[in-house]
Amino acid sequence: MAQKIPIRIYLTEDETPQFWYNLRAVMKEKPEPILHPGTLKPVTSADMEVVFCKEMVKQELDETTPLIPIPDGIREFYRAYRPSPLVRAYFLEKALGTPAEIYYKFEGTNTSGSHKLNSAGAQAYYAKEEGLTSLTTETGAGQWGTAMAMACAFYDLKLTVYMVKVSSEQKPYRKALMEAYGAGLIPSPSNTTESGRKILANDPNTGGSLGCAISEAIETAVKTDKCRYVLGSVLNHVLLHQTVIGLETKTAMDKYGIKPDIIIGCAGGGSNLGGLLAPFMGDKIAGKSNARFIAVEPASCPSFTRGRFVYDFGDTAKTTPLIRMQTLGNGFIPSSNHAGGLRYHGMSSILSKLYHDGLLEARAEVQTDVFDAALRFMKTEGILPAPESSHAIKAAIDEALECKKTGEKKVILFGLSGTGYFDMTAYMAYNNKTMNDYIPTDADLEKGFATIPDIPQNK
Amino acid sequence: MAQKIPIRIYLTEDETPQFWYNLRAVMKEKPEPILHPGTLKPVTSADMEVVFCKEMVKQELDETTPLIPIPDGIREFYRAYRPSPLVRAYFLEKALGTPAEIYYKFEGTNTSGSHKLNSAGAQAYYAKEEGLTSLTTETGAGQWGTAMAMACAFYDLKLTVYMVKVSSEQKPYRKALMEAYGAGLIPSPSNTTESGRKILANDPNTGGSLGCAISEAIETAVKTDKCRYVLGSVLNHVLLHQTVIGLETKTAMDKYGIKPDIIIGCAGGGSNLGGLLAPFMGDKIAGKSNARFIAVEPASCPSFTRGRFVYDFGDTAKTTPLIRMQTLGNGFIPSSNHAGGLRYHGMSSILSKLYHDGLLEARAEVQTDVFDAALRFMKTEGILPAPESSHAIKAAIDEALECKKTGEKKVILFGLSGTGYFDMTAYMAYNNKTMNDYIPTDADLEKGFATIPDIPQNK
Repeated sequence: MAQKIPIRIYLTEDETPQFWYNLRAVMKEKPEPILHPGTLKPVTSADMEVVFCKEMVKQELDETTPLIPIPDGIREFYRAYRPSPLVRAYFLEKALGTPAEIYYKFEGTNTSGSHKLNSAGAQAYYAKEEGLTSLTTETGAGQWGTAMAMACAFYDLKLTVYMVKVSSEQKPYRKALMEAYGAGLIPSPSNTTESGRKILANDPNTGGSLGCAISEAIETAVKTDKCRYVLGSVLNHVLLHQTVIGLETKTAMDKYGIKPDIIIGCAGGGSNLGGLLAPFMGDKIAGKSNARFIAVEPASCPSFTRGRFVYDFGDTAKTTPLIRMQTLGNGFIPSSNHAGGLRYHGMSSILSKLYHDGLLEARAEVQTDVFDAALRFMKTEGILPAPESSHAIKAAIDEALECKKTGEKKVILFGLSGTGYFDMTAYMAYNNKTMNDYIPTDADLEKGFATIPDIPQNK
Repeated sequence: MAQKIPIRIYLTEDETPQFWYNLRAVMKEKPEPILHPGTLKPVTSADMEVVFCKEMVKQELDETTPLIPIPDGIREFYRAYRPSPLVRAYFLEKALGTPAEIYYKFEGTNTSGSHKLNSAGAQAYYAKEEGLTSLTTETGAGQWGTAMAMACAFYDLKLTVYMVKVSSEQKPYRKALMEAYGAGLIPSPSNTTESGRKILANDPNTGGSLGCAISEAIETAVKTDKCRYVLGSVLNHVLLHQTVIGLETKTAMDKYGIKPDIIIGCAGGGSNLGGLLAPFMGDKIAGKSNARFIAVEPASCPSFTRGRFVYDFGDTAKTTPLIRMQTLGNGFIPSSNHAGGLRYHGMSSILSKLYHDGLLEARAEVQTDVFDAALRFMKTEGILPAPESSHAIKAAIDEALECKKTGEKKVILFGLSGTGYFDMTAYMAYNNKTMNDYIPTDADLEKGFATIPDIPQNK
């Protein structure tokens, strides 16, 4: 198998995944069950189907089926922009002078600019199959909203997007792109929902948060006929769809006999990292791999490194079920100085559990260090990375430089989850040295923790 | 050879071109020689080397070598982002209900967002090899400037970009991206050059033009030590570098036995279309193909369809050599309502000659029709196209719909030269229906024609 390894590995259409990888089915310690906030008992399908599509609920609650078939209709959608390339960071390696091999799976080649399209396409497909006519969702930095707008254009569904107000003001072009795809945009908090009006009454000048926008989108979905809500991260079914990233990566690496020693991803709600690491973590749990896994989060929203592993709501209005996860408290809102996404107060329950059980490491990075890494990457590899993805780049560079010190020839894999075309305001702030490295104080965090529900499970 | 054709064809690294294709060497009727504006005699290498790198001049004047080797250093650069995919527009075909097969060569997968990087990398490489330390250039819509900024970051050269003033104001993010790559940006016309000051004295409120920016960039190059000027389109050596597009496309098509009947590209200065069509036109000239070739230009800057085939200057300050080309006159400045690039008054002498000899067709399209086509494309194929590239999409759709009428199963190939991430202002204007379909009147054109030099060759 002395096959020459190309810089960019593309799978053939025959090699692309036919199943998603349900990591929970192979985890020895499962994530805690999702609870109904009233009864504090595990939620039932019936509870969740008021808000979500039936198939999403089924996938959300399935922790026993290891491989879940990807329907032909979704594989068809994936064919429009996948497989994505696995790239050897040959030029970055040379610039760093590291003996390490660095690979990245690049999910930014589609117009939504990120991996989010993998779940957007799946969720829109199921909604259409189930006879729905419209969907609601929220978006922060805008990748998820754009992905849903594209998917809804493809499957001919109406879409309403609640966009975090500060983002909709900072990113008029993101808004224009979603509108070009036919989506309706509402800056959140808004007067169109009860939860929005309540938040505005408390703080008329708030820039909003993902938690608020989720509350509004759910409320509208529940009140609208043939309409459901879709979420772009955190939940189990979203991570499931994203395993297409890890599966393609693993097939490509196996084909050329490459074994990653370190697997790195940025983490906001966890969908990109969860999708990338799933099959590799499966190998580790099965004792077939010694790889290390690293989640990289912004120091301004440190749900892993400074959060608590407790039951919390997914939204500010406290309307969602309770999820046991790493959380800063549903009332936590990161500083508006923080650029890009990764602003969510909680974290995927799967990744939270892996972290809690010592299978996943985490580190937090400040903004200017992250943009330093982004610039280093773009000048050598040529790709303008999203600020989110640049957290992973920062850790990959640090690990590669560590190898330079020790002389180890480790294989580093990271997820380049998206591009930064709509983040030029942040790059301008970096160029002009007006970027702010805000880190919440312990007192700031305490305010967030105070919003965590005071229930027996959290004692 | 009943090999299954994938939606996206990627060549292996071994299949990528090792030579550029010098179309002039196979043209039976060559383009007229470039003339020195003082003597009206063909320019010599010595004349041109004051402005351009030596190797660029050699390539510019070489009309006999059919295949020119791509140096290893440039093939290395190409490896950082090439080969680009040849995509079957499967979803667009389905939406149109056409029996035609539509393919596009997608050059927008690199961060500069267009094909321009193919020549930027080559020119920066030769500049470095020749011991230069800095380069100057101009940019309109910004693709070329970004491409040069990336190439100069890669080869460690200083770069000064004169950016058409109206573009630098409309596209602050383009500017930020070039600056992130380390380029120095100067809005043109500026006070940094004599030609800039002269233009400003005549019209202090001018938004500038490519012609003005070229004059300023050349003046600065000539006055600076170890510095030369680089141009991103129009010239023969630029088209030569861009033949990597057509060569990759032809190799991919030959591999699967696909023969294009119609080859379409947008045309501003002609580099993208010239690069795409070169090897296919070579086949046509050799009697091995009956393909049709179509250049698509904006109705607001119609150098093919309403221009004259005469000798003209390449810049407004009348400092360049004289090129026989389709031109609207060096003083022609398209309406500022026109979005995107394709704003140059002239056209590649190679394409002008092919047009004049009946080997190349041309058509002009108005903006809203072009954006209608862009939206149709992005909703089916998922890619946000550049306004420039959308001219080619418009013609491809029209030809596919013609096939629907006639029932013909033609194979249509077009160049998707770039992405529209930095053109959202234009998409917003389209969304809001504030986009203007300006077409110059005959009187407008006469003003431009009046600036064409009155020399014996033009009688």
